[in-house]
Amino acid sequence: MIKTKQEIVRQLKSDIPLFAKFSEELLDKLANSSRIVSFEPNESIVHYGTEATHFGVILTGMVMVSVIADGGTRLELGRLEAGSTFGELALTTGEKTQAELIAETRCEVLLIPVSVFQSIIVAEPQAMQHISRTISGRSRILAADPAKSAAALRQGDDPYGFKLKGERPEHILVVNCGSSSLKYTFYDTEDEGRHVRGQVERIGLEGTCHVHRGSKGEVKRELPGSGFAGALAAMVEALRGEPEVSVVAHRVVHGGERFTEATLITDDVLTQLDALSPLAPLHNPVNIAGIREMRGLLPAVPHVAVFDTAFHHTLPSYAYLYGLPYEFYEKQGVRRYGFHGMSHSYVCLRAAQFLGRRTNELEIVSCHLGNGSSLCAVDHGRSVDTTMGFTPVEGLIMGTRCGDVDAGVITFLERTAGLTVQQVDELINKKSGLLGLSGISSDMREILRAAEAGEARAMVALKAYCYRIRKYIGAYIAAMGGLDVVVFTGGVGQGSAMVRLLSLQGLDYMGIRLDEQHNRDARGFDEVCRVSTNDSKVTVLVVPTDEERMMAREALRALRR
Amino acid sequence: MIKTKQEIVRQLKSDIPLFAKFSEELLDKLANSSRIVSFEPNESIVHYGTEATHFGVILTGMVMVSVIADGGTRLELGRLEAGSTFGELALTTGEKTQAELIAETRCEVLLIPVSVFQSIIVAEPQAMQHISRTISGRSRILAADPAKSAAALRQGDDPYGFKLKGERPEHILVVNCGSSSLKYTFYDTEDEGRHVRGQVERIGLEGTCHVHRGSKGEVKRELPGSGFAGALAAMVEALRGEPEVSVVAHRVVHGGERFTEATLITDDVLTQLDALSPLAPLHNPVNIAGIREMRGLLPAVPHVAVFDTAFHHTLPSYAYLYGLPYEFYEKQGVRRYGFHGMSHSYVCLRAAQFLGRRTNELEIVSCHLGNGSSLCAVDHGRSVDTTMGFTPVEGLIMGTRCGDVDAGVITFLERTAGLTVQQVDELINKKSGLLGLSGISSDMREILRAAEAGEARAMVALKAYCYRIRKYIGAYIAAMGGLDVVVFTGGVGQGSAMVRLLSLQGLDYMGIRLDEQHNRDARGFDEVCRVSTNDSKVTVLVVPTDEERMMAREALRALRR
Repeated sequence: MIKTKQEIVRQLKSDIPLFAKFSEELLDKLANSSRIVSFEPNESIVHYGTEATHFGVILTGMVMVSVIADGGTRLELGRLEAGSTFGELALTTGEKTQAELIAETRCEVLLIPVSVFQSIIVAEPQAMQHISRTISGRSRILAADPAKSAAALRQGDDPYGFKLKGERPEHILVVNCGSSSLKYTFYDTEDEGRHVRGQVERIGLEGTCHVHRGSKGEVKRELPGSGFAGALAAMVEALRGEPEVSVVAHRVVHGGERFTEATLITDDVLTQLDALSPLAPLHNPVNIAGIREMRGLLPAVPHVAVFDTAFHHTLPSYAYLYGLPYEFYEKQGVRRYGFHGMSHSYVCLRAAQFLGRRTNELEIVSCHLGNGSSLCAVDHGRSVDTTMGFTPVEGLIMGTRCGDVDAGVITFLERTAGLTVQQVDELINKKSGLLGLSGISSDMREILRAAEAGEARAMVALKAYCYRIRKYIGAYIAAMGGLDVVVFTGGVGQGSAMVRLLSLQGLDYMGIRLDEQHNRDARGFDEVCRVSTNDSKVTVLVVPTDEERMMAREALRALRR
Repeated sequence: MIKTKQEIVRQLKSDIPLFAKFSEELLDKLANSSRIVSFEPNESIVHYGTEATHFGVILTGMVMVSVIADGGTRLELGRLEAGSTFGELALTTGEKTQAELIAETRCEVLLIPVSVFQSIIVAEPQAMQHISRTISGRSRILAADPAKSAAALRQGDDPYGFKLKGERPEHILVVNCGSSSLKYTFYDTEDEGRHVRGQVERIGLEGTCHVHRGSKGEVKRELPGSGFAGALAAMVEALRGEPEVSVVAHRVVHGGERFTEATLITDDVLTQLDALSPLAPLHNPVNIAGIREMRGLLPAVPHVAVFDTAFHHTLPSYAYLYGLPYEFYEKQGVRRYGFHGMSHSYVCLRAAQFLGRRTNELEIVSCHLGNGSSLCAVDHGRSVDTTMGFTPVEGLIMGTRCGDVDAGVITFLERTAGLTVQQVDELINKKSGLLGLSGISSDMREILRAAEAGEARAMVALKAYCYRIRKYIGAYIAAMGGLDVVVFTGGVGQGSAMVRLLSLQGLDYMGIRLDEQHNRDARGFDEVCRVSTNDSKVTVLVVPTDEERMMAREALRALRR
């Protein structure tokens, strides 16, 4: 990482055209006043829309230049190889940076402070000529493709594409197979007002029940003895009255490192998904069985897999690696994956839209608090850290999951209480969290009622729950180096003013000020609500999540690729 | 927790003498503009030395009033019961708060904003009379015991008692029995210059070796076939040339919830320590065996146990409870205990002394980075959170320990890789951390060398290590609601400018600015060094730790009790 001054000077002279004609003395001065920083893959080197503070020289590695395009997707503008420089445009015009530079491989970058750039480099006539040529080249890249350029600059009235639009009219069926439940939503791109949805509960258990809310109102019926096949068939049957389904979006919890975006399902993709099942034994097998069944029921339409993990594929290695032997990562894929990607990405786009800002200008902590809960650090549009890890157990205290716990506790319980692996999995997934701490319920509403009534353990559970959120907000500000927005979403995040209040307590130091009245008045299930004070440096929003719409949006995008 | 307005009004009128003669209307106004906050045991209600913002009425529970006395120990001034009020002194004089109020049991407190206090309460002649009486009573408590009062206000030249002083001259032997090593230090309270110390390595293994550095220089010899008994006997033998030992301080890693301070060892205490061994099977048994052996060797002198966990006994429940079923806490003591207490408490006192401040005025994050590492949030002198948990495995990435890891990873490895409980314990304690990630070494100096040489995995290990420190600093600022000082200590914390630099990267937002030159120049093993810039809101210090001196200090205090 750290080279000697001589090595740097040699490298600048031989590898960087800009410096070819610089004197040794000048290069020495440059090297002395600059520093070499190393970046891991996915680590951001320059953010969009910030003041440029350094002129950069890429010494090794490859850097991706991108912007957030209209519609909220990231658009690659090009790549910078070793020997390239960056920052000249912003430094000479004084404008803010116009694109984002992200390390694609491990990179070493020489960062030259703006003052040194101005005093040394700009003073050299040949250097200035070289820089002018680079600037003109860069401007051509930005301008070359009018669509791209426009995309880089324009914001429409639906900048993030929440209004579902296909290349032709589409009828999208969004399917979510849980362990014993099926939820589905039907979208008609021609008729945004058409709300069709339904669910089948207690699949494979006594009292299987199907509720369908369609154009003709709500229909509820029992499906005795139904497995998933029966439930899916009942769904297809109930949808007969609607326009014919033209694409099916399937929720798949775990996409591993292989699936970084919504993907059209082929036999090959299904084989790859099967291979990921050991990573999420509670979720993926049932997701995949649902896909197979639906491909049989609707063989003529495209099926798309949408992943909970995909949004987090931008985590840099130092954020996704555990402190375990590296072989566990390489050979068995043990790393932080993160979940709730649909919700985190949706609410961040919604928040940016609400604020009239671009997502890649904002540092956001997204708090998805439901029965399962996670926080996500969204740095200029990219997930850079999240609380759920290799499994959904890690991080926050949830309804029945424990969240963070000393690994030594697990071996202690196995050693002294004789718990088997199965019993531990059951314990940390089903018997812990609010339920385990309070002994009352996994439902925050009941915890709040019990706490109000003076139940000591409910109060402790509530405080522990919120304290952990608060700590992670602090941790993610540190991770991103700043914060613009905190978003609360999910059943608890949208529904509980008390949880929001306790979670943000004492964060004044970090520029977060809750407006208690607005917080109490927020109708978080109906609309985006600002609950911070007017003078709060950080904006706090309550945003109703809509994972199904996001899945439909992602499925349409996958079709277009 | 939350009572109806009517209930509050009734309670104020019937239970709080101050409000006995207030009209319903006035009480209604009070209740409307105030709020009830609930505090858990150990949660701080009012900090020392801050601006008072509320007048408080204790509705339920018990509150401890304390100050930090000369010598750095907490001095209890009294207790406030339900019905008591607080804040009148600071609110009427405009001075800063003169004592710390900490919840002793769960408390409900009515907090009345200063503006309301001034407009409503001060306006009532009877209330003012009542308040004046309270103030005069409080002043009497502060003044009643001249020693106490002086202690509350004075700062000497050795305010935290690092110069070891007993009631009579003492010769203190500090003993630390590790898994296969023995370290000891000998202090003479009459002669601070006497540096006697030594260690025995590879106890019970091939090549057991004893190094003693005494008045006559260093003596090194082999102790073939020595167990702990032999090693301790060799130590006692080597000390024959020094003044006779008058007290022995034994390091005990785990004190459970029972031992909250250094404790004179009796047979009964030993029995209680035995009962704690399941909590720390790797450490406590060998600590206790050492105590038993030493009591046999030096039966005439007092032996004192000093605990790594004791400093953290002030954690509130919401910080020490995991999201596991509460029964595991109640029945098996599964909770966060924290370790490195001697080091964290020592460096915080040293930092306060260096800054000429009182410890109970400061919010400190203490970073002990050695082979084992932990961070501690020290809020106005009290540990309120720490990264190590039930065992020393949790938290930071360490030399060979993994730190935080998804509990789901443990069960995954047991399920799919067939690891036994013993293998998992070995994995997370001995094969992980820097060693496991880098595949090179557990020693940060070697990691840094390899990273400089361009080794990719060393670089990732370094970045992951520092990233986690950075996140916890953010988390603890959130936990405390602010920050005055960051302290680095331990071999890595004192020795590595690069680790300090990377750990504090991007924390400008939180008021932390490193002076890169001072940081590089810091001689962290020799003296306290300030490495933040002059305009940094938060002071960053490198403080050489001295756990042995702290143990000696604690042992002397235990003798005095």
